[in-house]
Parts: sequence; C-alpha cells; structure tokens
Amino acid sequence: MSTPSNKKKLHLGAFIFGVGHHVAAWRYPHTDTLGLLTLDFYRKFAQTAERGKFDMVFIEDIPTLPERLETAIRYTVPVRAEPLTLLSALASVTRKIGLVGTVSTTYSEPFHVARKFASLDHLSGGRAGWNAVTTSMEIAAQNFGRDHHLEHSVRYERAKEFVDVVTGLWDSWEESAVIADKTTGIFADPSKVHAIQHEGAHFSVHGPLNVNRTPQGRPVIVQAGSSEAGQDFAAQTAEAVFTAWQTKEEAKAFYNSLKSKLPTYGRTSDDLKILPGILPIIGRTEEEAREKEAEFQELVHPAVGLSMVSNMLRVDLSSYPLDGPLPDLPDSTDINGGKSRYQLILDMARRENLTIRQLIARVTGARGHRTIAGTAATIADQLEDWFTDGACDGFNIMPPYLPGGLEEFVDLVIPELQRRGLFRTEYSGSTLREHLGLAKPANRFNKLAIH
Amino acid sequence: MSTPSNKKKLHLGAFIFGVGHHVAAWRYPHTDTLGLLTLDFYRKFAQTAERGKFDMVFIEDIPTLPERLETAIRYTVPVRAEPLTLLSALASVTRKIGLVGTVSTTYSEPFHVARKFASLDHLSGGRAGWNAVTTSMEIAAQNFGRDHHLEHSVRYERAKEFVDVVTGLWDSWEESAVIADKTTGIFADPSKVHAIQHEGAHFSVHGPLNVNRTPQGRPVIVQAGSSEAGQDFAAQTAEAVFTAWQTKEEAKAFYNSLKSKLPTYGRTSDDLKILPGILPIIGRTEEEAREKEAEFQELVHPAVGLSMVSNMLRVDLSSYPLDGPLPDLPDSTDINGGKSRYQLILDMARRENLTIRQLIARVTGARGHRTIAGTAATIADQLEDWFTDGACDGFNIMPPYLPGGLEEFVDLVIPELQRRGLFRTEYSGSTLREHLGLAKPANRFNKLAIH
Repeated sequence: MSTPSNKKKLHLGAFIFGVGHHVAAWRYPHTDTLGLLTLDFYRKFAQTAERGKFDMVFIEDIPTLPERLETAIRYTVPVRAEPLTLLSALASVTRKIGLVGTVSTTYSEPFHVARKFASLDHLSGGRAGWNAVTTSMEIAAQNFGRDHHLEHSVRYERAKEFVDVVTGLWDSWEESAVIADKTTGIFADPSKVHAIQHEGAHFSVHGPLNVNRTPQGRPVIVQAGSSEAGQDFAAQTAEAVFTAWQTKEEAKAFYNSLKSKLPTYGRTSDDLKILPGILPIIGRTEEEAREKEAEFQELVHPAVGLSMVSNMLRVDLSSYPLDGPLPDLPDSTDINGGKSRYQLILDMARRENLTIRQLIARVTGARGHRTIAGTAATIADQLEDWFTDGACDGFNIMPPYLPGGLEEFVDLVIPELQRRGLFRTEYSGSTLREHLGLAKPANRFNKLAIH
Repeated sequence: MSTPSNKKKLHLGAFIFGVGHHVAAWRYPHTDTLGLLTLDFYRKFAQTAERGKFDMVFIEDIPTLPERLETAIRYTVPVRAEPLTLLSALASVTRKIGLVGTVSTTYSEPFHVARKFASLDHLSGGRAGWNAVTTSMEIAAQNFGRDHHLEHSVRYERAKEFVDVVTGLWDSWEESAVIADKTTGIFADPSKVHAIQHEGAHFSVHGPLNVNRTPQGRPVIVQAGSSEAGQDFAAQTAEAVFTAWQTKEEAKAFYNSLKSKLPTYGRTSDDLKILPGILPIIGRTEEEAREKEAEFQELVHPAVGLSMVSNMLRVDLSSYPLDGPLPDLPDSTDINGGKSRYQLILDMARRENLTIRQLIARVTGARGHRTIAGTAATIADQLEDWFTDGACDGFNIMPPYLPGGLEEFVDLVIPELQRRGLFRTEYSGSTLREHLGLAKPANRFNKLAIH
C-alpha cells in the first residue's frame, strides 16, 4: 500500500485567462478588474501559484479579438497580454514555477518562436514551456494578410513541420559547444554548432539558432488539441496536453486513446502528461459554493452566453427560442477548427437533452471545461477520483475570478491534496521538466548526449 | 545665463550588447562572461542604469548568427537574448527606466509586434520603446524562408508601411474605450474600438488590436538607420534616433540634416531626439584609461578584427596585406544594407589614411561608434562639447565590458555630468515619453484626444 510520501503525485497548472475563467469574472465584486494588464495583478497570481507549489502557470492565447466583436467588447474582457511578454515579466518575480505560454503555429515564424522560448528558458533558469497550437479562428487570418483560414488538416501538417523546425533550432547548439575560455580566447566550438538546413513544404530555415542550448535542453512542449489530428500531433511531439472533459468516462477514453498512440513514436506513457481543465468554485459549505456559482451566473449578460455558444457551435443561435432544443447540427467531421470543443458541447447537449438556455448556463462558466462547485474536501475528492481512476495525470486549475480564486484554491484545496499525499509539499527540482518528471531530451545532432 | 538646474539636459541610453561592446569584452578579466543569458546579469545592468537615472536601457538585435560564422562562433559572443523576452523580464525588476528593444520590420508581422510592445507598455507602466529597424544581413533571409534579401529601398517601403500598421493598431482602442463598470456590466464601448482595415503593398491587417490603449498612448518609436532612406523614415516616424559618428562635424551635419526634414512631416525639432553611440573607457588617470584601452585591444584575436571589418565593408580582406591600405571600394550607393556604417568606416580610413591593421584597431572596439578613453572629467568634457555644440540630444552609452563598465560610468561620469547641470539627478516622470520629453501622441481615430 502506498503511503502519502511515495504516492504518485498530481501535476497542476495555474491557468491565467483575463481576470478569471468565468465569463462574468470581471463583474464579480472580489475581482481585481482594474488590475488587468498590470504587472502587480500577474505577479500576485504567479507568486500565489508558486506558494501553492504548482508545476506551472499557463497562459492561453489567440492573436485576434473574438468573433461577434461588438458583444465581446461590450460585455466581456477581450484584451489580453501577449504570452511571452507576460511570462518573461513573471520569470523575474518567481523562482521555481514553470512558465508555459501559447504561441500559434499558424501565424508565426519558427525562428522567432524558437528564440523566444529559448531566451525565456535561459532567463528563467529552465522553466519555459511552449503550448504549440493551431489557430482555429477565421478572423485571426485577417490580421496576418490572409483572407481565408488554412484548412484543419493543413494546419496540423504545418504545425508538425513547425515543431520539427523549432526543436531542430533548439538542438543546433550542442550542450558542450560553449567553452568561454578567457585564456585561450575560444568562445565556442564551431563543430558543435549546426545549421539545420530545413527545406520543407511550409518552411525553409537555415539556422543555427542565435541562442545556445538552454538549461532544459529544450523548453517543454505542450499541446491542446483533442481531435484525431490533434492527438496524433500530441503523441508525436507533446510532453503535456491540456484538454477539456465533462465526464470521467470521456476523460478516461481520451487518456487511454492518446497514451496508446505513444509507442508508435517510440515513447512511453510517462513521456506525456494529460491535464484536463477544472473550474473550481470553492465554498466553506456545499451550499455556499452553490450560491457562489449562482452569483456568477447571474452576472452573465444573456447576449454573452448566446454569443459564446454560437461561437463554439459555429451557428448563429439568436433566431432560435432560448427554451427550445438546439437546431440539428452536424458531427464535427465537417468543422474546420475547434473540432473537439464543438463535439464536446454537442454531446453534452444531446446527452442531457439541454435547452439552449440550459446549455448557455453550462458552458459560459468554464467554456466547456468541467466546473466543480463544493467544499475543498468535495473538490479534492473529485480530483482524486479522476486521477486514481486513470482519467488524467493532473489538472489545469481555472479559477473563476482572479487573483482571489487562485488564493482560495491554494489556501484550501492544496493543503487537502497534500494531506492525502496527492500533491508535493515542496519543489524537489528547479526546472519545469523536473516538476513534470520529464527526461531531458536527446539532441538530434548528438544522440548520445542524453542527460 | 543658465544655471545647473534649468539647463537643457542630456538624454542617455544604456546599450546592452552581449557581455560588453568591445569585441573582446568576454575575455576581459572583470567581465561576467558566464552570466550571459542569465537574469542576474541583465538585472544588475538595468538596476545600475536606473540608479544612474538613464532614460532607457536599449537592446539591439539581429535575427541570425553573424556572417563568417565559424570565426564568430569561435572567437566572439554570437548568442543573444531575444529583446522582448529580456525587456519584459527587466520590467519586473525596475521601476522608472525606459525599455527599448529592436525588432526588425523585415521578417516580422506587424500584428505581433504591435501586441508585444503594447503588452510591455502595460506591464511596465509606460516604459516601452521599439527600435524599428530594417535587417541588412543577407543570411538573416535564410532563417525566414527567403533565398534573397529584400533590396534596400524595398525594405524601407516595407518598414514605413509596417510602422503605419503598428501605430494604427496602437490607436485602435481609444483611451476612453474601456469603462469596466461592474454594475451595468459594460466593459467597453464598441464605438471607440476601431478595425484599421489596412490593405497595402506589403501587409493586409484588419484589427483592432487585442490590447487596449497603453499608458504611453503609443510606445516610443526609435530608429537607427542613417542613410538618406533611413533619415526620411526617421523624420516621418521616429521619436529617437540612434546613430554612430566619429567626429563632431559629421555628427552635426547629420543632426542638422535630420532635424531639417522634420517640418516636412509637420513635426518640430523637439519631437525627435538624436543619440550617437559612445564607447567610454574610463580611468582614474588619462594614462590608466589608455592602458585599459590597450589591454582590450590585446585581447582581440586577429581573425576577429579582419572578419569584422570585412563584414562592414562587404569585402573579404583576408588576401590583402594587413599593413597596406584598403583596396579600392565603391561609395555606399551600391551597397544594399548597412549603408551608413559602410560609408562611415570608409570615410574614416580615407580621411586618416589608415592601413587595414590600423582600421581594425579603430573599429573592433566600438563597431564604428566613437571610443573615448579618459578620466570621468575628460569624457564629460567631450559629451558636453558635442551636446552644447548642437551635435546631439544625448548619447547611447556602450560600456566596453559588462556589467562593470556601466557601473564605472554611473559611479564616475554621471556625477560629473550632474555637477555640470547636464543630467537629471532624479526622474521627474515615470514613463519613457516623460524622460525623453516627448508628447503623448494623438490617436488617429480621435484627433482631438491629445493629452
């Protein structure tokens, strides 16, 4: 039997999104809404997460304002800090916690992305992670000189090539290349610095990178797509996957499906950690938690809920009765982008026979992620159940409002998880790889150099 | 007669380059060479510059390793932190000093650049500046899927359009757009958020930006090209210009030429500050300074000097005798990139009838910028002379080694400049615009809103 100290531990991410994950977070009285985009706001968040011994803070991104612009601007918080800028600022005010940011492979150049994360990995002493996503929003294309969005499968082909170029650039300086011998005047050994000379369907990149090999060897690669194409991409390249599931059964099916694909690429189950998102609404009693959840829901402007569900389901629902069912919608095979989120919402509506109004109430809080409202013990129970039953390797924690929602989690739920032996009480390592239990990757130019 | 307190003040930048501006800096015994790419190294630099009341720290950039790669890797420090990553990390550990970084308009997307500097301006409380350069190195093109570099004039056309798109995106949220009224539930006024709908020769960008208007209105725009095309670009768009001159006469001619172009664009002399680079080698006596300069020169590997001058003059000099003159070289009209630096080096060699060896000794230290070796008083004399004689509005200080070279400047030269009433003894503002005495720009979507 396992004792608390040797039990397998959860991995936890602290997920930054606006001033909170609930769509009405900004209206909640305890939210620091005017702190948005100020350093103090994010410093408090990151330092609280580090106090809670989280593996990482994580910042999502889209390189555009949302669709249905007028509603988004009028009723929601549509602005956001650029992830690398923010994570670098947080590197200076934290010491141990990992720093994971989203950058799209659809509208970026691999050389820039490789440099930025390599710089962050150096400056943070080995704490950088890249959430490599494909961008699924048509309107993003218009900010980058393209009238139409790339088709779903092409985006994944491009993403795979993109990641291959980036990891190649991270490998372009072998770890032992820099000598820096002041006496002989030799700074580095040119035979250990490699041009990658990549010529592919989407990119042509010569290299080498102008940043030497980083403390982690390579920053950690994270992925967040759960469609079939997304799973294949993740199985090949990702070291952590962020995902969204409403039920343990769905989560387990995804977990087993993705983990079973790893051997195809010569990888083991331990090489990739799967973390579903959870929106915790924490009360001192069950009743207080339910009241708090209701308080958040009352703050949602009706137009916002309708707009969010319309976006997710790629259909304008404003002409349908709120208390009627969804119109007939196709399964996700015909959807170009956000496939897995689309199917998740549709399945939930079908499974529970929800009206449009009920569906809005269910998804506006956590954008398709699972909401758990309860006491610290109840929430810990549910996290423990999913974890011990093989539905995940940990969770991405999405506080409904910030920074207070994270403080509640750290002060109430984390100690409960620690008492159960499910979560670390101190960092044992100092890099994100060490927190996640991931090996330092081999260098493609020097396969023997596994550390 | 002006008193020290009401005298016009110098503007000073603290210029980060590797572990020092002298090409052999990394070999100098007092240089923290192993600190390269660590946060502690740059934090010490930025905090020292802020202690000295500098207007800004400045970081140059090229998105590639240097040409003549093997020599660069073996004998110099060719790696560098990505500017935005580094400046954001420094935003958290400084309070007042401006943060200016180079990003090329040749290989970037305006939407990304607008976002990053807008994020930095928010996170730093109004201290961001963008050095908008064109990239003049052929080998950079190969890291971005292009076989050939854009022709010089096309790069400037692209740069002008790029800056226009970026400033448009910075204007896309009017200052009063965000309301954030928790009671009414109105976050922002959509009528004050504008798509820019730019359709040009090089870019098509719809907008609006997904970051609201920043503390400075717009981050400060800096420019660094001194060719005719560079001057026109600067006169139209730049608020500060970094430049390189060996003699006061050249500097004055440039100063008068550039300032005279401002009225064409409806701007005044105060709207643009011109800061030549200066590499100070500081001794307690003149003799100590000269010995120190010689000590640096002795650390330069001969292959490095030859390679640097060959790069700057776009010719392989390795087959010419070191103690002979330069071969015949054309004036800069035929040169695609680095035009002004090319002409500066060539003019210096012709004017002083230098051998290749002598030229190497002159340019390896400061890469074409002016070196001043002397006591704090001598250096202050020369800075004062250029400033009061109308050759500049201040200087970009390029310490030969880091971080010690900046500490010497702050401890010895800054107090001398302050005693003479030429430099501030305390910050009077808290934004980079305020330090530089620049007005907050009008918003193109709301011309009346000048603050």
